[in-house]
Amino acid sequence: MTLAFDIEARDPHSRARAGRITTAHGVIETPVFMPVGTRGSIKSLTPDEVRNHGAQIILGNTYHLYLQPGHELIARMGGLHHFMGWDGPILTDSGGFQVFSLVYGGIADEIKGRRPTQQVQPGMVKVTDDAVIFKSYIDGSMHVFTPERSIEIQKGIGADIILCFDELPPFHAGYDYTARSLERTHAWERRCLMFHRATQEGGLPFVPPNPYQALFGIVHGGVFPDLRRASAEYLRELPFDGLCIGGSLGENKQQMREVVDMTVPHMPDHLPRHLLGIGDVDDLIECVARGIDMFDCVSPTRLGRHGTALVRDAERRWKLNVANAALRDDPTPLDAWCDCYTCRRYSRAYIHHLFRAQELLGIRLVSLHNVAFLLKLMRTIRQSIIEGRFAHLRAEWLGI
Amino acid sequence: MTLAFDIEARDPHSRARAGRITTAHGVIETPVFMPVGTRGSIKSLTPDEVRNHGAQIILGNTYHLYLQPGHELIARMGGLHHFMGWDGPILTDSGGFQVFSLVYGGIADEIKGRRPTQQVQPGMVKVTDDAVIFKSYIDGSMHVFTPERSIEIQKGIGADIILCFDELPPFHAGYDYTARSLERTHAWERRCLMFHRATQEGGLPFVPPNPYQALFGIVHGGVFPDLRRASAEYLRELPFDGLCIGGSLGENKQQMREVVDMTVPHMPDHLPRHLLGIGDVDDLIECVARGIDMFDCVSPTRLGRHGTALVRDAERRWKLNVANAALRDDPTPLDAWCDCYTCRRYSRAYIHHLFRAQELLGIRLVSLHNVAFLLKLMRTIRQSIIEGRFAHLRAEWLGI
Repeated sequence: MTLAFDIEARDPHSRARAGRITTAHGVIETPVFMPVGTRGSIKSLTPDEVRNHGAQIILGNTYHLYLQPGHELIARMGGLHHFMGWDGPILTDSGGFQVFSLVYGGIADEIKGRRPTQQVQPGMVKVTDDAVIFKSYIDGSMHVFTPERSIEIQKGIGADIILCFDELPPFHAGYDYTARSLERTHAWERRCLMFHRATQEGGLPFVPPNPYQALFGIVHGGVFPDLRRASAEYLRELPFDGLCIGGSLGENKQQMREVVDMTVPHMPDHLPRHLLGIGDVDDLIECVARGIDMFDCVSPTRLGRHGTALVRDAERRWKLNVANAALRDDPTPLDAWCDCYTCRRYSRAYIHHLFRAQELLGIRLVSLHNVAFLLKLMRTIRQSIIEGRFAHLRAEWLGI
Repeated sequence: MTLAFDIEARDPHSRARAGRITTAHGVIETPVFMPVGTRGSIKSLTPDEVRNHGAQIILGNTYHLYLQPGHELIARMGGLHHFMGWDGPILTDSGGFQVFSLVYGGIADEIKGRRPTQQVQPGMVKVTDDAVIFKSYIDGSMHVFTPERSIEIQKGIGADIILCFDELPPFHAGYDYTARSLERTHAWERRCLMFHRATQEGGLPFVPPNPYQALFGIVHGGVFPDLRRASAEYLRELPFDGLCIGGSLGENKQQMREVVDMTVPHMPDHLPRHLLGIGDVDDLIECVARGIDMFDCVSPTRLGRHGTALVRDAERRWKLNVANAALRDDPTPLDAWCDCYTCRRYSRAYIHHLFRAQELLGIRLVSLHNVAFLLKLMRTIRQSIIEGRFAHLRAEWLGI
């Protein structure tokens, strides 16, 4: 038994549920938001800080860690937990998202429905039914990912939850491409599962630092209801420990929520559900209502680096630009509701000054606040589900 | 009484001494190293971190804080202590060092004996017997510092120890220029003292956040023994709370130590002595031996940003480049002697990875280590003076 999921409470007015995921490195109370540590660090923050502010699980990116410092070195250093000093649960993605963003010129933009800002560079990688060939973003060297290779790398990193390798078709690919891609992804997911099981007893070129890894499948199908349903129904028959919703989620927030709505009813109730890469305040609340248990997003640290603080203010779309001149002599904390280190100790005026003066501490304090803010939001959501107040919280936060 | 200095122990083989400085914001055990928070933050670190690692006093730069966010705003926000969240003692310099580095093209290089890397730009500022006119490094706007203005700004910032405004002549100025400059600086120091006393009871355009400020004079005279002696003898007759050694310290470490040797014997024994801007491991030890009580330097955080860690290794000149490939799979801490957060929690391999991946956390962890390393060194030096082992420590650390 590598992972257990127990549902503790359900909201009577929506698909929201509160549960507990048990892993080899501890328990995760859901719904949960996981901060992203792309290269083995939650940007500018220590593991202790994010743990002390309530982080239960963090995400590492296989693509980046494979290229630098390399999964074999991480395995030799005792696995990512030991290497980076985080002893709680870790999830790694498969690397698929990143290698395909090379070919489609910024897949994050695609998936979130924004138009590409750069030309597609189809020569950069080659995709076959067997493998993806791509260039390193660091030095341009050529690399090959197969489903088996992705799992092998993730076994070297040693996360508690690992993901299947999948193809990320571009949003504007249309129905036929998406349907063909879905077949390929399903075949890859089967191969991941087989390789994962085949190497449970050994056979890798290194000693895996964590023998208790759970494998999640990823539901694809773009914005097409019949493909999403087919994918969920296909994957639920395979022995995955949980399922993600991946691939294109449409052009805007409304379409993303429709994709979740068309997919969740066909996913098994007894497995945790992870919506990949989503982290806006309203999306977290709305997707919990739609039955999602797990979220990850780089947004809190990315926003922090650019001086945007999350605040409990629907009219501002939950965002405050700390460089705004109105904050120059504002003695109040970034957010009155938040109880993070930044909000307990520093004024908006000081943080405004740090950003104007381009001091690194500013990035750090706002990144910590943003991570803590989302973690507290998720705890508050969870408690409201348990206490039967989720509908009230949803209306109160979203101002509806 | 704004400041008291008590000497607790003296080394029988050198001028080293251990003492206690009492300020309005707490006691400082000397000899002491103070981390520098140029713009109201010890770069990348929180006040809590540096306090938890033994910092007793920090330095803020008047020039930078005056330009951004401005001393009147800092005064309105309750003073620098409250603004930046540091409740221990603070020292501010006078701004003189920075405004003169504009005219002489990098005065830090001059003072440390390196050749200027850029052309002198004499048009950038104008120096008269009354004032210095200079351009802001931020927006090129024109500003005027006088001795009185420097003290007024420092009263807005509210440090516990403030410094007299002084002229920083270039190293290559020669005897005659240095002698004339010394006269001007002495006149400025008298004006600072008079203005400091005249405004003790009020008369400033803001409410001073800290009414208990001590004022230190600065001994000048370049590398010339008679000028250094004349300066020390002149200033010791004025009611300063402590004295600094400032101005040109020669071309190299040896000449810097000679300047200290020619100056300290003429400084009063009962006042704390601050050697401005010096922070190398060997210089700290050698200048404590020469009777210095207080040090400040940006080096621990500057080295940290550039990936150089301080280590207890005289053969390496106490420096380790963390990007060195030899550290790639080194599981040991940066330094075995150090007990800072970084060394307790992270390996050289991980910190090497963070710098290779350009992760901000790397800067943070090495900066914290470097600050903690120097603070522990100073505590160790102090204890050795009290226990009569300073000569042994000096030989052991310097490998002599």
